Amino acid sequence: MNVDSAGLDVLSRQECLDLISSATIGRIVFTDRALPAVQPVTFYLDGEDIVIRTGTGSKLAAATRHTVVAFEVDEFDVPTRTGWSVTAVGRAHAVSDPGQIDRLSRLPLTAWAPGERNHFIVVRAEQVSGRRIRR
Amino acid sequence: MNVDSAGLDVLSRQECLDLISSATIGRIVFTDRALPAVQPVTFYLDGEDIVIRTGTGSKLAAATRHTVVAFEVDEFDVPTRTGWSVTAVGRAHAVSDPGQIDRLSRLPLTAWAPGERNHFIVVRAEQVSGRRIRR
Repeated sequence: MNVDSAGLDVLSRQECLDLISSATIGRIVFTDRALPAVQPVTFYLDGEDIVIRTGTGSKLAAATRHTVVAFEVDEFDVPTRTGWSVTAVGRAHAVSDPGQIDRLSRLPLTAWAPGERNHFIVVRAEQVSGRRIRR
Repeated sequence: MNVDSAGLDVLSRQECLDLISSATIGRIVFTDRALPAVQPVTFYLDGEDIVIRTGTGSKLAAATRHTVVAFEVDEFDVPTRTGWSVTAVGRAHAVSDPGQIDRLSRLPLTAWAPGERNHFIVVRAEQVSGRRIRR
């Protein structure tokens, strides 16, 4: 196992993808009016694509159009001070092809917020990195 | 209670600060070599300052020097699809005054990663926003 300069275990790409796949909620990191922004989202890992379902007119839909974003998942246990985090960085795009929208609509992915949620953002997990902290 | 365009409850500044204060782990969002970056950290809310303890030579220390960052905490319950998230945006600075370093060293704040951790980053919670999702 590789260890980084901070003493944390460095996870492989496959371990990172498996951990992303195990999570229900992630955080999408983007720029909103020149300021750093972050928003929790439900998602589904479709191969190496992170699929996010949102409303057409949402701030997230507007801010992530054709831009590079980060996507983070983590899980920590405070009593034992252990846990892991994984970050994927890649280009985001809005899905416009009706056939692809139809396919993504059938994924086991439900937005928690009420209202129409038929806009899909896909983030390709181009760069993936992850760390695990053990006692 | 205010509700936003996505149907989520909008939290007040005081509710946001109380929720930040209740958490142990947050995520600092910044820019690393022109790309969006995010890193989980342990922190302590000192008044309206988010205090983060790290190593002097850490990537986080370098990337957050005199820049605006976002800081996020959240808590979700998957079975009931409820939870909350709070984001603070503000200028980050490294603490250099020995008296202040001495005071911050005595806060109940321990970095989980091993090694020397006597560098303090302070993020002033200038803009705070939060949402709660209920069934």
